[in-house]
Amino acid sequence: MTDLAAVKAALKTQAVETPSWAYGNSGTRFKVFAQAGVPRSPWEKIQDAARVHAFTGVAPSVALHIPWDTVEDYAALAKYAEDQGVRLGTINSNTFQDDAYKLGSVCHPDAAVRRKAVDHLLRCVDIMDATGSRDLKLWFADGTNYPGQDDVRARQDRLAEGLAEVYARLGEEQRMLLEYKLFEPAFYTTDVPDWGTAYAHCLGLGDKARVVVDTGHHAPGTNIEFIVATLLREDKLGGFDFNSRFYADDDLMAGAADPFQLFRIMYEVVRGGGFTSEVAFMLDQCHNIEPKIPAIIRSVMNVQEATAKALLVDRDALAKAQAAGDVLGANAVLMDAYDTDVRPLLRAVREEMGVDPDPMAAYARSGWAEKIVAERVGGEQAGWGA
Amino acid sequence: MTDLAAVKAALKTQAVETPSWAYGNSGTRFKVFAQAGVPRSPWEKIQDAARVHAFTGVAPSVALHIPWDTVEDYAALAKYAEDQGVRLGTINSNTFQDDAYKLGSVCHPDAAVRRKAVDHLLRCVDIMDATGSRDLKLWFADGTNYPGQDDVRARQDRLAEGLAEVYARLGEEQRMLLEYKLFEPAFYTTDVPDWGTAYAHCLGLGDKARVVVDTGHHAPGTNIEFIVATLLREDKLGGFDFNSRFYADDDLMAGAADPFQLFRIMYEVVRGGGFTSEVAFMLDQCHNIEPKIPAIIRSVMNVQEATAKALLVDRDALAKAQAAGDVLGANAVLMDAYDTDVRPLLRAVREEMGVDPDPMAAYARSGWAEKIVAERVGGEQAGWGA
Amino acid sequence: MTDLAAVKAALKTQAVETPSWAYGNSGTRFKVFAQAGVPRSPWEKIQDAARVHAFTGVAPSVALHIPWDTVEDYAALAKYAEDQGVRLGTINSNTFQDDAYKLGSVCHPDAAVRRKAVDHLLRCVDIMDATGSRDLKLWFADGTNYPGQDDVRARQDRLAEGLAEVYARLGEEQRMLLEYKLFEPAFYTTDVPDWGTAYAHCLGLGDKARVVVDTGHHAPGTNIEFIVATLLREDKLGGFDFNSRFYADDDLMAGAADPFQLFRIMYEVVRGGGFTSEVAFMLDQCHNIEPKIPAIIRSVMNVQEATAKALLVDRDALAKAQAAGDVLGANAVLMDAYDTDVRPLLRAVREEMGVDPDPMAAYARSGWAEKIVAERVGGEQAGWGA
Amino acid sequence: MTDLAAVKAALKTQAVETPSWAYGNSGTRFKVFAQAGVPRSPWEKIQDAARVHAFTGVAPSVALHIPWDTVEDYAALAKYAEDQGVRLGTINSNTFQDDAYKLGSVCHPDAAVRRKAVDHLLRCVDIMDATGSRDLKLWFADGTNYPGQDDVRARQDRLAEGLAEVYARLGEEQRMLLEYKLFEPAFYTTDVPDWGTAYAHCLGLGDKARVVVDTGHHAPGTNIEFIVATLLREDKLGGFDFNSRFYADDDLMAGAADPFQLFRIMYEVVRGGGFTSEVAFMLDQCHNIEPKIPAIIRSVMNVQEATAKALLVDRDALAKAQAAGDVLGANAVLMDAYDTDVRPLLRAVREEMGVDPDPMAAYARSGWAEKIVAERVGGEQAGWGA
Repeated sequence: MTDLAAVKAALKTQAVETPSWAYGNSGTRFKVFAQAGVPRSPWEKIQDAARVHAFTGVAPSVALHIPWDTVEDYAALAKYAEDQGVRLGTINSNTFQDDAYKLGSVCHPDAAVRRKAVDHLLRCVDIMDATGSRDLKLWFADGTNYPGQDDVRARQDRLAEGLAEVYARLGEEQRMLLEYKLFEPAFYTTDVPDWGTAYAHCLGLGDKARVVVDTGHHAPGTNIEFIVATLLREDKLGGFDFNSRFYADDDLMAGAADPFQLFRIMYEVVRGGGFTSEVAFMLDQCHNIEPKIPAIIRSVMNVQEATAKALLVDRDALAKAQAAGDVLGANAVLMDAYDTDVRPLLRAVREEMGVDPDPMAAYARSGWAEKIVAERVGGEQAGWGA
Repeated sequence: MTDLAAVKAALKTQAVETPSWAYGNSGTRFKVFAQAGVPRSPWEKIQDAARVHAFTGVAPSVALHIPWDTVEDYAALAKYAEDQGVRLGTINSNTFQDDAYKLGSVCHPDAAVRRKAVDHLLRCVDIMDATGSRDLKLWFADGTNYPGQDDVRARQDRLAEGLAEVYARLGEEQRMLLEYKLFEPAFYTTDVPDWGTAYAHCLGLGDKARVVVDTGHHAPGTNIEFIVATLLREDKLGGFDFNSRFYADDDLMAGAADPFQLFRIMYEVVRGGGFTSEVAFMLDQCHNIEPKIPAIIRSVMNVQEATAKALLVDRDALAKAQAAGDVLGANAVLMDAYDTDVRPLLRAVREEMGVDPDPMAAYARSGWAEKIVAERVGGEQAGWGA
Repeated sequence: MTDLAAVKAALKTQAVETPSWAYGNSGTRFKVFAQAGVPRSPWEKIQDAARVHAFTGVAPSVALHIPWDTVEDYAALAKYAEDQGVRLGTINSNTFQDDAYKLGSVCHPDAAVRRKAVDHLLRCVDIMDATGSRDLKLWFADGTNYPGQDDVRARQDRLAEGLAEVYARLGEEQRMLLEYKLFEPAFYTTDVPDWGTAYAHCLGLGDKARVVVDTGHHAPGTNIEFIVATLLREDKLGGFDFNSRFYADDDLMAGAADPFQLFRIMYEVVRGGGFTSEVAFMLDQCHNIEPKIPAIIRSVMNVQEATAKALLVDRDALAKAQAAGDVLGANAVLMDAYDTDVRPLLRAVREEMGVDPDPMAAYARSGWAEKIVAERVGGEQAGWGA
Repeated sequence: MTDLAAVKAALKTQAVETPSWAYGNSGTRFKVFAQAGVPRSPWEKIQDAARVHAFTGVAPSVALHIPWDTVEDYAALAKYAEDQGVRLGTINSNTFQDDAYKLGSVCHPDAAVRRKAVDHLLRCVDIMDATGSRDLKLWFADGTNYPGQDDVRARQDRLAEGLAEVYARLGEEQRMLLEYKLFEPAFYTTDVPDWGTAYAHCLGLGDKARVVVDTGHHAPGTNIEFIVATLLREDKLGGFDFNSRFYADDDLMAGAADPFQLFRIMYEVVRGGGFTSEVAFMLDQCHNIEPKIPAIIRSVMNVQEATAKALLVDRDALAKAQAAGDVLGANAVLMDAYDTDVRPLLRAVREEMGVDPDPMAAYARSGWAEKIVAERVGGEQAGWGA
């Protein structure tokens, strides 16, 4: 029997960080379809992120991406965020958009390029000091496109060296989150292709280094919830980048492609004690054709729904069926929770939190979409600048 | 016993069309790394394509992409190509870069957008008349990112209607080549995701409609040579877009990721009687980090090597082993050809054709790379303009 | 607005055929774990199938597999089924377990083996005459394990020839359902690997030949509902083999691995007018570790739930959002139906049908499981006999 | 410039262990096609393994599988092997064919089953003492078929506990090789699905625990050579199980599906210093339709050819091109080695080793195939007994 009050209490503590870049324009290598009203500065991104939090109640922080979100005064940005009702979260580094990085950044064969990349990462830690961010999220576009192009193993040595220097710079309460990705933009090898590689590097670095699971970064057939369970067991799960995909690309709304998978992942989080502040729940997705703010609200809600279902699993009944080797019975306990329509529960939770029970409708009614289209005219829209 | 003279003769007739866009800049959604010396106009692309043909002897035509290669006078462009030693080949349409195409082109829910797209395709046939091109190659970025986004079946109806109008416009000797692709830039459905869909539409249209097999457009585990054999058996194989990939993205050099697969494909071509002018052999790839002209020369050579090996298969011995149910023997006959180092044979073929036996070295010595870097200064480099 | 009465009415007409072999023992190449109480004859399989129908109300027929279900008197078997409350359904051929079939059946290089295989298929049509079955379901284990092992294209010719002979033998009201499968037990090529190949053969044969979609037989990333929509549009969808899988193997309970996918498939069925007797809804799965009858009941219920959700989609609202290009709105309409907990609705439907609202519990209470364990002692348990 | 004498010398030291089970019957869940002449005992398997070594010169040991190769006197078996010209190699455990293991072995929810499984593993170490084997290879069929079936994380705890007990029992010179596998026979989770999981357990155990890379056990798109490079860098690569596959199943002859991949793997072995006795090179494959001994000879030769090509890579030239960021140049150096026809070199190596230059032909001429068919009549053929 699940304790509904406890479920509600847990749901009220949920925090899903939204990424600043999701508010800007994005697309594929074929085309970026610009949208009216998208932010033209980090400040405007924070405005939008604050709207998402205002309507969901569970998106209290916004991740920055450097240099896309470079400002002169990060303390002022942090203050601005606070005034808007959110706070600055994870700092994401970018070592893939300078011409120097064509063949890699921290893994590049040329020491000068590696230096440049590591300096950028160190600068990101400086920014963390200014923003009060806890986490530095590292994703590297490094890799190779052709067999033989570079020495796979030497690149690992360079990676380890670069990470070590950055790790040494972290403050007492700061962490390094290392992300892995199977492919793209490198197509033969990526230098951190799987959780095993990220884990091995984190082990070498120390307790402040943790693995990030981006739900869209795995080979077909990979059991992501198994990885989550394993990393939690090893106390090495730093957080999630939520998004979804059907085949390649990893930028659809979280939960859109396989809501059952998201539920299974969240179940392992709950079961593994990962529903704590130690594990960062972040979105990392882009909205190429759909309006951005509603897409992010919807994604946050999808994560909430998966979480609610995971919390509803009758763990005593499950444990009993598992111990008895009752395959169908155990599966049925899990499915009972998944098959539950948790939208009424979440509406109730929102009302208790003082948030509109229907965030999508409330946002639509708010006039914000029309306002930003009308007011954000001129200037350069935020985007990847690829 | 294979007849070496016949193999050589066949290799001398080989023609691999290179794509104009491969000479320009390209990249991923993360970054386009511009290269010095890339063409700034269709005319310069033709210059580069002519270099590839000059050094390989088997790349006599260049495909155009409209509107990237729009010029005022296509007859003049054709004449220029001829003067350079090549000819204009397939016309490739582009219905994905106008803002109107965010939700599709010929499959778009809005009839006005479909009209615009079909008009573009008709305009491409006009250009074919002017350039003397035989083939119109159609690849559609159409698809959806989310379940429910649009009506999958209605989109097929719209596609059929659009194709029919364009098909009706084709001249007596003109053809329509329909390409399929599993994913990207649409991530939930693409409107022509597999050979079956392309084949069904071609059947409905008539004999001038054929299927194009892009070697990078399949799900993992797909047996591409089986598709080739089947389409040849059905007399519906229009041509190839060669390239390769390890996981996603389809823009590595042909033969770079799985040379054995390319050999198996070429073997089915040879076996199925497809080594004729009816089947168009085209490259469709981009060179994000490697220099473009040498990458294309290398790709052409990779196709040549696979073809040479395919031609070397001792088909009598193979048929005998197959008929006898000799699994290992039959496999060994195929592998004998594959394991052969055909580079000496191809050097000999080139010398007999009056081409340098080592195209890569000859190109490097030619000074063309240095010349274009020096001369192509200013102006706007060609690229996808995404 | 969906019409709940119409939804209920549709659900009451649903018919899911269960496969006789699912009641017997099965396993992997590593081990078959025999279960107590499994049937020792086709008669006992029918008893079990009748239990599934008795408790679900929507599993009125049982598919036979020849020769596993060979009996002397098929009319008697049909009568027996009727007495138990079910009827005999599709006849499934087996051309993979005779030693002669090591290198194939209808595609075998040796004409004598092909003759043997075709004779078996003809014999299956004889059985259909006796049982009154409408459909002959053909799945071929044919294929090759190694490149070169046999001539891929010649095998297609042999396949076409064999199918044509069997097709000619079909009665006026009989049909041939051709199944495709990406891999297994052949590992390099299968002779009917994808829907395109099955479709091309069906086109060549005539209207009585239709394609079967086995939900577990696709490459990763394949959009199965797209295939369903396309086959319905072409009027070539003969039926489904439902089951599910995470990576390989296709024998998990339908809906167990990706319930959202099953819903999307059922939505395309409903939308495409396929919810008719023209499309056969069959299970094709095995239960290696879980008890068989409850697993089949659960699978039938999973198909029901997906169907109920598909029927609940507000198609007017969906069409409106799609026409407006409202990506999020259209997706939300679909998801609203998916997120609905349809179990109360199905309980109501069952009560109206005079069936216990909770089939799993009712079966458990019935004592059947204990009865068959007690009574089915001795004899040879049904299984694949691999 | 590669030193040809050194290449030859290295090739002469190569040792590929063949698996006893590859000499017996095997198949798929659909059918095992028995072959005439297959061994009926471990003694006869050793005879066949000795033939493979006699004709290749590089297959000096044979792996045993317990209980399939259970004998009363292992010392006698070792002596017999020595007399035949080979030695006993790795001991492979089997904890998947007893009825008790339906829901797992060392990860089973029931402590009694876990005890039974660990006892079997301990017994395997006893056998190692008797045979003088260095390595215990552990592959577990453990896993689950359905979400919720068992507690994923608790199973890891049980696994760790079981492994620890076995590890503690190892002698000074003995090792434990832990294998991972993505799927099969469990289809939702396997308890050691990837190298990361195996690596984490090995780290926890100590230096005598190493990871085994089975080339057929990965998700599509996985870069296996990257894993090899990483495990060598971490000094945790215990060995290989070579085989190949196109999609699923992992039992085709090594090098048959993707010879380029096998070359890349062997290149990383050579580059990483793994071409030593520390890394065990084993085949793990079965021959369902082809004759077994020639298939194994061919597989050994395929590994040899990949190794020869890997050794021929001009590493100085490669390093220079890599350091210069010369993408095409570096790739060309690697491809030069791959494109080389190494069969003449290997013929020469064999002659210098006193082995027939053409092992396949020599075996065919030897009459062994006819002899075993004639003599091995009656008795029970070896097989998996699934």
